[in-house]
Amino acid sequence: MVRINDNYLKLPGAYLFSEIKKRVTAYEQANPGARIISMGIGDISRALPPSVIKAMHAAVEEMAHDETFRGYPPEQGYEFLRQAIVDTDYRPRGVDLSIDEVFISDGAKCDTANFQELFSPDCIVAIADPVYPVYLDTNVMAGRAGDLQPDGRYSRVIYLPCTEANSLKPPLPPKPAQLIYLCSPNNPTGVALTRADLSRWVEYAREHGAVILYDSAYERYIRDEDVPHTIYEVPGAKEVAVEFRSYSKTAGFTGTRCAYSVVPKELMGATADGKPYPLGALWLRRQSTKFNGVSYPVQVAAAATHTEDGRRECDALVQSYMENARIIREALTAVGLKAYGGVNAPYIWAKTPDGVSSMQFFDRMLTEANVVVTPGVGFGPSGEGFVRLTAFASREATEEAMERVRTRLRA
Amino acid sequence: MVRINDNYLKLPGAYLFSEIKKRVTAYEQANPGARIISMGIGDISRALPPSVIKAMHAAVEEMAHDETFRGYPPEQGYEFLRQAIVDTDYRPRGVDLSIDEVFISDGAKCDTANFQELFSPDCIVAIADPVYPVYLDTNVMAGRAGDLQPDGRYSRVIYLPCTEANSLKPPLPPKPAQLIYLCSPNNPTGVALTRADLSRWVEYAREHGAVILYDSAYERYIRDEDVPHTIYEVPGAKEVAVEFRSYSKTAGFTGTRCAYSVVPKELMGATADGKPYPLGALWLRRQSTKFNGVSYPVQVAAAATHTEDGRRECDALVQSYMENARIIREALTAVGLKAYGGVNAPYIWAKTPDGVSSMQFFDRMLTEANVVVTPGVGFGPSGEGFVRLTAFASREATEEAMERVRTRLRA
Repeated sequence: MVRINDNYLKLPGAYLFSEIKKRVTAYEQANPGARIISMGIGDISRALPPSVIKAMHAAVEEMAHDETFRGYPPEQGYEFLRQAIVDTDYRPRGVDLSIDEVFISDGAKCDTANFQELFSPDCIVAIADPVYPVYLDTNVMAGRAGDLQPDGRYSRVIYLPCTEANSLKPPLPPKPAQLIYLCSPNNPTGVALTRADLSRWVEYAREHGAVILYDSAYERYIRDEDVPHTIYEVPGAKEVAVEFRSYSKTAGFTGTRCAYSVVPKELMGATADGKPYPLGALWLRRQSTKFNGVSYPVQVAAAATHTEDGRRECDALVQSYMENARIIREALTAVGLKAYGGVNAPYIWAKTPDGVSSMQFFDRMLTEANVVVTPGVGFGPSGEGFVRLTAFASREATEEAMERVRTRLRA
Repeated sequence: MVRINDNYLKLPGAYLFSEIKKRVTAYEQANPGARIISMGIGDISRALPPSVIKAMHAAVEEMAHDETFRGYPPEQGYEFLRQAIVDTDYRPRGVDLSIDEVFISDGAKCDTANFQELFSPDCIVAIADPVYPVYLDTNVMAGRAGDLQPDGRYSRVIYLPCTEANSLKPPLPPKPAQLIYLCSPNNPTGVALTRADLSRWVEYAREHGAVILYDSAYERYIRDEDVPHTIYEVPGAKEVAVEFRSYSKTAGFTGTRCAYSVVPKELMGATADGKPYPLGALWLRRQSTKFNGVSYPVQVAAAATHTEDGRRECDALVQSYMENARIIREALTAVGLKAYGGVNAPYIWAKTPDGVSSMQFFDRMLTEANVVVTPGVGFGPSGEGFVRLTAFASREATEEAMERVRTRLRA
């Protein structure tokens, strides 16, 4: 038999969200009457905006006629979409990009998972802890993480614990790191890095020759003035950072699938003999060899979010989820729980009562309030003692869930 | 600076199709009046079938309302699509599959590119030569191919030369191979493996503990009775083969993006300590960690191709392209060129005149007939001396291109 990639076996059990699903299903089967409200998986509940629907119908219609039909899309994405991104997401923030620096894909999950392929397996990885599990898992699969130790940490990975002591912000690595994964606003904590925070990271990366993989999927939820909307607002960031963006939470695209990554021309890696090599060229090679571009109607739909109407509709969608976030924060606080996030992000990071583990509190929320949350430990060892709630349920479901929290959760 | 994955630098120059694009653009700029007809890149020209358009519009409409909106799709694909595949693509061929063995994706390019991740970097790879370049390139990027030698071959790869002497069919490997890439009907030669051929391959794989990565993207073009439509028609194949399928050429999905892979439960790899491990479980882990599923409207569109109307419309589309293939074969033969394929596949593999290289003949076709073909050498060393023509242009363009071949091509 053919030898498998043994690194896959270093991943413990199932992916977090699968495990949650199993427990919820088991509870549902044992309690057929229970009406469970999910605030666990970060999926959205509201329809695509009207401008998006209109554009997508029109694109489908183009596909119906030989004269307007579109075949293989460009692997890097259609120019009309990349131009819209450059013009409306970056130029208004004072960031000039060329469309050659923008790469369209079918998801930020794919991009943040695949980008590590461009680097040597020897690179030292640093990740915020807790954080979206895909960064770590994909490095485990690539053999870059070492072995899982009894403390729940991989031997070759530098964890950057985000604790209450440091306001849930990742500290600079205690030893040199080469690939640094940051997510801001952070999934799961909801905490966003300020201009001062990001300047420190850019400075660190420049000093240590590191690359920052900056996941900015929740950018549209930022409200505070001192939180940059793109890492490139920080001078010098183009030389050290790739940025990942998504339409999933901005425009309701979780089921439609579109995202993009920005790889500035200035961003370099080093070859074996120490020569600089542009990461953008490597990423283009990776995408044009392993990917065949995003569905034409989907790219047209994404482009519609960049029009004046589309932006207004997306802003309203985001604002509506942020109102949910406020409702959640207030309810949790009212029952005496400490809640972070929810101000610049659609995630609320709630501290469990003293002595209650995040998995135990997940079970309590499920069985007492019939509300599904995500146990914080699933996002990293420092997530222990927290659960994540998302603001993506409908208003009605959010209000009912919080009413149950207020009335049913035992002290 | 961070060390890059140096394996990427072992790939010579640009990906074949990019290089062709450059030469064509240069010719167009130098000859603004020339009306170039592309029979090079395997892209299609005809619109999506009516059933597909209708289904896709309906799915877009579902996305417009909170009540019917769909969020994250299952990473493995919606059950309605996997069930349709099992019921209509396999059961009628006498092959029983469970929907757990079917994985929906956004392209066979992605699937054939990504599947190698499941295996150890030490595995020995065998590829048909010539063949679709993605198999080799992705193994080069993974460090499995060794170094490029002066003869155009990678040191660790076993090439299976498909020459006129062996009827353009890959011979069994001269030394033990572990991962065997087969494409039937073959891109670029258009030659399909018969039941007897495939039985030999399955037997070989069973004897040597190899895995066959079977690319069956052109299955719908098969006309001969003795050519199986799936490798699983051969007894014992489930224990040694994964099969890749695509909607691109079957239903005109090159710009819509949907495909699937079949990983039978019986298919095993070996862990470091020699224990069998199901490849389907590894692939599920890979997909659920690095991929977020296919756009809902696209999956609904794909499912429409499995309905009675959809199948009839797709059959008509395929038949129309096969008529183009006949026209191309006849024209090439008429001017004294030897032409293979085009009977069970939308590709025609034409032998260049004596002493003319495939790149020279590409240039001649471009400059004399203003027809773009693909130089055979781009598909592997044994492609030298051939060019590939595709049957995917419109009828009108195909007829005009062949008229030019008959009248303009110098003897």
